[in-house]
Amino acid sequence: MQKLHTIPTLADIRETLSAIQPLIHRTPVLTCQSIDQIAGAKLFFKCENFQKAGAFKMRGAASASLRLTEEERTRGVITHSSGNHGQAMARAAQVLGIPAYIIMPENAPDVKKIATAGYGAKITYCASNIAARETTTAAVQAQTGATFVHPFNDYNVIAGQATAALELLEEVGDLDGVIAPIGGGGLMSGTALAVHYLAPNAEIYGAEPLAVDDAYRSMQSGTIQENPTTDTIADGLKTNLGDKTFAIIQAQLSEIFTVSEEEIIDAMKLVWSRMKIIIEPSCAVPLAAILGNKEKFAGQRIGIILTGGNVDLDNLPFKAVC
Amino acid sequence: MQKLHTIPTLADIRETLSAIQPLIHRTPVLTCQSIDQIAGAKLFFKCENFQKAGAFKMRGAASASLRLTEEERTRGVITHSSGNHGQAMARAAQVLGIPAYIIMPENAPDVKKIATAGYGAKITYCASNIAARETTTAAVQAQTGATFVHPFNDYNVIAGQATAALELLEEVGDLDGVIAPIGGGGLMSGTALAVHYLAPNAEIYGAEPLAVDDAYRSMQSGTIQENPTTDTIADGLKTNLGDKTFAIIQAQLSEIFTVSEEEIIDAMKLVWSRMKIIIEPSCAVPLAAILGNKEKFAGQRIGIILTGGNVDLDNLPFKAVC
Repeated sequence: MQKLHTIPTLADIRETLSAIQPLIHRTPVLTCQSIDQIAGAKLFFKCENFQKAGAFKMRGAASASLRLTEEERTRGVITHSSGNHGQAMARAAQVLGIPAYIIMPENAPDVKKIATAGYGAKITYCASNIAARETTTAAVQAQTGATFVHPFNDYNVIAGQATAALELLEEVGDLDGVIAPIGGGGLMSGTALAVHYLAPNAEIYGAEPLAVDDAYRSMQSGTIQENPTTDTIADGLKTNLGDKTFAIIQAQLSEIFTVSEEEIIDAMKLVWSRMKIIIEPSCAVPLAAILGNKEKFAGQRIGIILTGGNVDLDNLPFKAVC
Repeated sequence: MQKLHTIPTLADIRETLSAIQPLIHRTPVLTCQSIDQIAGAKLFFKCENFQKAGAFKMRGAASASLRLTEEERTRGVITHSSGNHGQAMARAAQVLGIPAYIIMPENAPDVKKIATAGYGAKITYCASNIAARETTTAAVQAQTGATFVHPFNDYNVIAGQATAALELLEEVGDLDGVIAPIGGGGLMSGTALAVHYLAPNAEIYGAEPLAVDDAYRSMQSGTIQENPTTDTIADGLKTNLGDKTFAIIQAQLSEIFTVSEEEIIDAMKLVWSRMKIIIEPSCAVPLAAILGNKEKFAGQRIGIILTGGNVDLDNLPFKAVC
């Protein structure tokens, strides 16, 4: 596949899905009567928590990795990530037999360190700040000549993330709306493109924690906003938007909802207890948005991307007996 | 359907599956590469954690309820259960529009009280001992004339539980063995019958916590043994066998494995973290048995019944930050 230098077209997204198929699962779309009753809407959960490496990030990582030239493959890929993108890049590289260099903050959860190392990546730890991350990444890249794959602000990655919504729409047909969480905006912008192309009448919604409502404020102000603090349980959603993801989000989204930490935990618990599946806090955010805005979604058919299932079972947000 | 007064035949089990279909989910059979690698075997997980009311018990409850006469339906059903059987009877009765009377110990987990009440059952609480349970059940039964449905020592219930293994074998074909947990033995004896009829060359295994190894000891001694204490996290497996379930288990099982509490928690955590699904401690017991006896299962194709997914998220056995 050729590298993408402009906003992915429907043909690009379809080509991407076809190419990445050997590296990903076609994840199921689940429904849940009891949650539908509570929400007053018909919800279709696209279960990327069952995706390889545990999250939708595998799609973008596979898309970017498969677009490397032969020469680039020899030198490998590099990225910085404390979470699912790093695991996904490591896994994609492992399957394709190319080196992967992952820069991780020292304080990343053990469960993510172990999983990333388990996929055979070479991990370099750095201090938990942007300057250290960038210096370390640059140094390892200079040594190795590896190709940097940005976690979200990259059309090759966006085209990969778009394939989740493509599969969702192929499977369930007409929807009144689709909602996804917003971190850096890779999944959101890919989802928005797929819905825009395939279900032009459907509304496209985003959701993010109130504690890191940079995308909401970016939409309001028309320029990319940052988060002064990142104190949220939804650890996949702390990042600011990039210019590529923001442009797509700005053009395509009807509305961004913000939710409290308590609403996130309640929605996560609802999915765990009613659907019997493990989801990360980040992917409870869209359901929390629906439950907090029931009148808006009443009686509608809404698609929700459940983004991942990589949680640290030793650090769950539920009440615990000690 | 007619009530069953003898050990269910294959035709009985098939008739039962066909009759209960409207009341149950056909649950998926999942596989997991990374757990297979750890186990050194090919495992097929029959996911009754996704069953209606959250456990396989729905199958037996539906089977028994659908065999009531018109007159019996009017008076309703009664049972005692601190757990999944009560929920399942309540749900089956709700769907069939018949009254359900459930006797529960006062100290049952809130999550089970709420779920049972949510299905519209009339709950009577009693002290947490066998005498109180039996007196209370008899009193409510005398008042209402409801038909008592035993949680496991009943051929109608056993025929229902057998349908999980029937579906498993229909879906995955040849297996070298099937393993299920043993509490009162309803699931185990039903599973054993289905495997005996449909896969006569497959081994039939049971698994139970070392802390409540009454079935293991019953097999050794040839008579039904009791558990002097019931201190296990696998709360679905504390019960002793009944005469009907024991006779089938004694005739059909190759071996019963016992596992420690730590092995149960480790196996449960493995399923949660690798498969991203919620299972109860009770259904981690068979996987724990496989992981503790790898040489026995090396390279084999083994079916595992994952019995349920009703856990109290506020009381998880994992380490917790407080």
